[in-house]
Amino acid sequence: MEEVRVGIVGASGYTGGELLRLLVGHPQVEVAAVTSRSLAGRLVGEAFPSLGASYPRLAFAPTDSPEAVAGCDVVFLTVPSGVAMTLAPPLLAAGARVIDLGADFRFREAAVYAAWYGQPHACPDLLAEAVYGLPEFFREEIRKARLVGNPGCYPTAAALAVWPALEAGLAEPEGLIVDAKSGVSGAGRHPALEYHFPEVAENLRAYKVAGHRHTPEIEQLVAVAAGQPAAVTFTPHLIPMNRGMLVTAYLRLRPGVEPAEVAETYRRRYAGEPMISFLEGDALPQTKAVAGSNRVDVAVRVDTRTRRLVALAALDNLVKGAAGQAVQNLNVLCGFPETTGLPLAGLWP
Amino acid sequence: MEEVRVGIVGASGYTGGELLRLLVGHPQVEVAAVTSRSLAGRLVGEAFPSLGASYPRLAFAPTDSPEAVAGCDVVFLTVPSGVAMTLAPPLLAAGARVIDLGADFRFREAAVYAAWYGQPHACPDLLAEAVYGLPEFFREEIRKARLVGNPGCYPTAAALAVWPALEAGLAEPEGLIVDAKSGVSGAGRHPALEYHFPEVAENLRAYKVAGHRHTPEIEQLVAVAAGQPAAVTFTPHLIPMNRGMLVTAYLRLRPGVEPAEVAETYRRRYAGEPMISFLEGDALPQTKAVAGSNRVDVAVRVDTRTRRLVALAALDNLVKGAAGQAVQNLNVLCGFPETTGLPLAGLWP
Amino acid sequence: MEEVRVGIVGASGYTGGELLRLLVGHPQVEVAAVTSRSLAGRLVGEAFPSLGASYPRLAFAPTDSPEAVAGCDVVFLTVPSGVAMTLAPPLLAAGARVIDLGADFRFREAAVYAAWYGQPHACPDLLAEAVYGLPEFFREEIRKARLVGNPGCYPTAAALAVWPALEAGLAEPEGLIVDAKSGVSGAGRHPALEYHFPEVAENLRAYKVAGHRHTPEIEQLVAVAAGQPAAVTFTPHLIPMNRGMLVTAYLRLRPGVEPAEVAETYRRRYAGEPMISFLEGDALPQTKAVAGSNRVDVAVRVDTRTRRLVALAALDNLVKGAAGQAVQNLNVLCGFPETTGLPLAGLWP
Amino acid sequence: MEEVRVGIVGASGYTGGELLRLLVGHPQVEVAAVTSRSLAGRLVGEAFPSLGASYPRLAFAPTDSPEAVAGCDVVFLTVPSGVAMTLAPPLLAAGARVIDLGADFRFREAAVYAAWYGQPHACPDLLAEAVYGLPEFFREEIRKARLVGNPGCYPTAAALAVWPALEAGLAEPEGLIVDAKSGVSGAGRHPALEYHFPEVAENLRAYKVAGHRHTPEIEQLVAVAAGQPAAVTFTPHLIPMNRGMLVTAYLRLRPGVEPAEVAETYRRRYAGEPMISFLEGDALPQTKAVAGSNRVDVAVRVDTRTRRLVALAALDNLVKGAAGQAVQNLNVLCGFPETTGLPLAGLWP
Repeated sequence: MEEVRVGIVGASGYTGGELLRLLVGHPQVEVAAVTSRSLAGRLVGEAFPSLGASYPRLAFAPTDSPEAVAGCDVVFLTVPSGVAMTLAPPLLAAGARVIDLGADFRFREAAVYAAWYGQPHACPDLLAEAVYGLPEFFREEIRKARLVGNPGCYPTAAALAVWPALEAGLAEPEGLIVDAKSGVSGAGRHPALEYHFPEVAENLRAYKVAGHRHTPEIEQLVAVAAGQPAAVTFTPHLIPMNRGMLVTAYLRLRPGVEPAEVAETYRRRYAGEPMISFLEGDALPQTKAVAGSNRVDVAVRVDTRTRRLVALAALDNLVKGAAGQAVQNLNVLCGFPETTGLPLAGLWP
Repeated sequence: MEEVRVGIVGASGYTGGELLRLLVGHPQVEVAAVTSRSLAGRLVGEAFPSLGASYPRLAFAPTDSPEAVAGCDVVFLTVPSGVAMTLAPPLLAAGARVIDLGADFRFREAAVYAAWYGQPHACPDLLAEAVYGLPEFFREEIRKARLVGNPGCYPTAAALAVWPALEAGLAEPEGLIVDAKSGVSGAGRHPALEYHFPEVAENLRAYKVAGHRHTPEIEQLVAVAAGQPAAVTFTPHLIPMNRGMLVTAYLRLRPGVEPAEVAETYRRRYAGEPMISFLEGDALPQTKAVAGSNRVDVAVRVDTRTRRLVALAALDNLVKGAAGQAVQNLNVLCGFPETTGLPLAGLWP
Repeated sequence: MEEVRVGIVGASGYTGGELLRLLVGHPQVEVAAVTSRSLAGRLVGEAFPSLGASYPRLAFAPTDSPEAVAGCDVVFLTVPSGVAMTLAPPLLAAGARVIDLGADFRFREAAVYAAWYGQPHACPDLLAEAVYGLPEFFREEIRKARLVGNPGCYPTAAALAVWPALEAGLAEPEGLIVDAKSGVSGAGRHPALEYHFPEVAENLRAYKVAGHRHTPEIEQLVAVAAGQPAAVTFTPHLIPMNRGMLVTAYLRLRPGVEPAEVAETYRRRYAGEPMISFLEGDALPQTKAVAGSNRVDVAVRVDTRTRRLVALAALDNLVKGAAGQAVQNLNVLCGFPETTGLPLAGLWP
Repeated sequence: MEEVRVGIVGASGYTGGELLRLLVGHPQVEVAAVTSRSLAGRLVGEAFPSLGASYPRLAFAPTDSPEAVAGCDVVFLTVPSGVAMTLAPPLLAAGARVIDLGADFRFREAAVYAAWYGQPHACPDLLAEAVYGLPEFFREEIRKARLVGNPGCYPTAAALAVWPALEAGLAEPEGLIVDAKSGVSGAGRHPALEYHFPEVAENLRAYKVAGHRHTPEIEQLVAVAAGQPAAVTFTPHLIPMNRGMLVTAYLRLRPGVEPAEVAETYRRRYAGEPMISFLEGDALPQTKAVAGSNRVDVAVRVDTRTRRLVALAALDNLVKGAAGQAVQNLNVLCGFPETTGLPLAGLWP
């Protein structure tokens, strides 16, 4: 099989570092170029002491230099929202395929982007062309895409938790509540008081209640799965750990639906999915089971007293929630086996 | 003011240790006796290296010895459910007042206890007499009580989060969802694989989904607050930290209720409560703010898109969630100022 | 007893916050003024959500305003090194007593300060007058002082670990090795990449090997204890926890010294010290035993195979390592009982 | 290249789980059998939720069944000390090669084993035949071995830190001090109060001061490196994190030795070693840089004021400190490229 040349724009953050970690083990990929504004000219090992031995000679080019990733077959963009939509057009024009790990190419409607991200979309036609990169639900579209909007971590976990129930009409999309918990790496690598170690360790809090930007992305997925729009209540929480995300979603079960039917629906839906484990018996998702891996563990419980379906999903926010999913998308795009270079085993402990 | 003689039965667990820590600073209390089956004859400092200097000569008597706490004015029971209901009758008969930190005296109906705790109640008449020890809502009853059922940590946090809205009829009790997160000390001090450090650190999981025993206790409180019974969906989660609990509760707002009305209702309800801080502005509860203290931080948000009320409360599960609340109950029982010996300031960081 | 009016300059960092937490419970102190450049005009509760209920109306004055702490009997300075030596002279001139929690008044020789802190000392005469505020060894001098240099956290722990052995001539001061480990709050509250939660959690490293500024301060203490100067090898390490410091010191035992003699020397030396617990039997110091308290746990072991004395001390870097020691100094200065307002019990867990 | 059939005896602990995680990615290995007394008959995924997707059908055979690993080419023993020396002889007799991850085959002298492990060695002739499995120093012997004693985690880190200096005669072996810090997974998976999450988190302590069983193993390595025996002072510490080990070693520099000479000696010694990174410039070892990887980061500093050499090494105690080193030994034994299946990149964060 041939090798693709890959570039990563904005590679000194956690998502960029995770891409680099995963691509070390990808036999069809050559990391040809990485860029970083803050670390231009420095070796990868200076940003990530964990990677110096794996990329002894790779140095960051300045982010603003467009020629840095020229000649790459696939370019990953790990830059702030609003930046990717200015970088993607020339890269696509030059023939590269682009996987954006930010929010710029995730929405079907430019108006939704504008409303939640506070600026008009710079290239609505590309937005219309872009494919939402959640392979478990949009695999065929991704296969043919030039431009992939890699999903947010919370929407990935939420969608994998609730999709089978909504798709099969077992539960109401209306009234869906997504209570989500994330490790701190999801906040990125930029230091700030709220992520200063002593402020976070032995602490626990919700944030952006009723206002997080992943809300419309979750709603877009719910609409596709359920075949009808629905407003979602979404509350993220910050957990004192590095990696890992757990979504606990609450849905009203439709009348007459039995617990066994719910389990069987999930089991069937995810049977052929290499990255998704539907947990049977007493097992519940836990983030340690997927740490460092691209897997997602999913379980469901029916609260028969309240007729609620509680759907849970655990993933590693940097892997299936970001870089791993991006590599999975690259595999789909390039026709590689979908699990190539992606660890299925988690790090325990 | 006079001093009361206090005994603690089962004092070598985390709740017992926290009672001892708090009572060091209580000017009206003398700790006259502590008991422990596993550490009978050992000094307090052997169980708690943190307390050896404060109780240099206090040793544990064997738990089974009833005379160990004879002569105490107030006895705290920190023993497993099912044990307290055998210990309380003779203590009460001997004239002591009893504060049970377990579940044996929390329920109004013996049948509820039996259904959730798997055994019939041994003294239903005492259950009928016992008072539920949540001073913010049952202060007058506690004042006159001989026997107090000290609340569970989750029910305390959940009740403080939702009570004002239910009491004022701003939100529906039906459909209430309580998504709760707790530090590991809430699981007690008995070592087990699931609380072994490497299994918990960098991990996050839900447990006992749709089946935790605090569910009926929360429902009992909801029924009182709302004036009508309602089934509650309750999901606890284990968080990799020692102390702290956060409840995120979701309620449907009644038609016509405005966000400002919700905030004003909470503000008024908790205005005179020394232990409750209703957070204004952008502030949200976080467990670090109450670490080691008996305070509870409460906030509310209205999700106007979904008409959901999101009510949040943070407390220290060992203090307001257990030992601190028990001392608060002792203060009420004995007519001491309610905050005596109870820290209001948290440990930051 | 009379009340003293206290001011804290630079009160929005961790040391300032810890002073505020401790002074809540100090019956002879009124916190009259706090200052902060970054939070001028804001309430204490905005800097420390843990303290809002305890100081509901106290706001930060701008640090640069000298009149902010005018009229205070005692002023604590928690400002960067180099700043305190400009603030102290006018405060002393106005009749206040000053306790500086930085390094500006810790050294006997201005040349040592200049060599390690990179600037000449601005008021060498005040340096000569200042007293080193480690009450266990300099209590009488502190009693009469106007100006106290509150010790560094590492020197406090190191001195308490090795002092009795050196003072009694049981071990050589030459060749002393101090291997020290600290929680992250010791690095202060200013966010930086190296203290960003995901960089620290699940990580462990030494820093400033053979070059940390606490080295000459330790050497100054060793010289007093041993009666002769000695160069010390000092290595600090950063531990993924909020609070707590452990020093493991290695000394060569002098010929003929027996293990029992070492233990007896420590036992006698610390017998009357309310803040120091010399651990007997198998017990070893651990930071949790002193979390939130002003105590120090000390133990010694003799490695008979190598004739090394291993001396260990654990303390809370923010309490006995900073703010608690400062309050202890205030108590000595003002003639209050030395433990006033200082917790002896630690927070377990 | 051919595939070897591998068995793991005692595979339900952390070391066994880590072997399984690493061998997922080893192209020349088939895991043919795993055993566990406590989980006999259960699937691997029940012991390690992280591994269920990778080993969907592999179940534990009972440990005591010798036929469980019959037919394996290489058998890893991850059983308590004292057990491996009864299991190894029949396995070797049956033609398997054996890598013991415990202490039974690490010592050159049976008397040393007996003195530190409290029982006579059951097969001193095998002990004489066994090879100490630290490939960086004993690669040629391992190549020809039937029986490998896989090193302890602390001795691995200590040896890699000090070996080049001792071997080159730059520092004195006498008086060597090894101050070591380890994450909690090093204590194994058996729950006990001292490793219960709330006892460890936010805590820090030394343990087994002047008496840890890794002391003679370190001394054996020092003797080989330096060409002369020396007694070592060794102090291990427990750090509140899952994985990672840091050794800070202190040696007296020999007269006339210059800092540059030390660095150059280390640089040359480790130049060809794929698993060892000698850090240049300001970089110091940190455990996060090697988390999940088989690398070791080494650095040296000369304290010119005290003529001490401070040598530091960081590794992942479960990888290079146990399972990864065992796989490295398997690679050497079997003639595979030495890094096969072994990650060089760490998990950041």
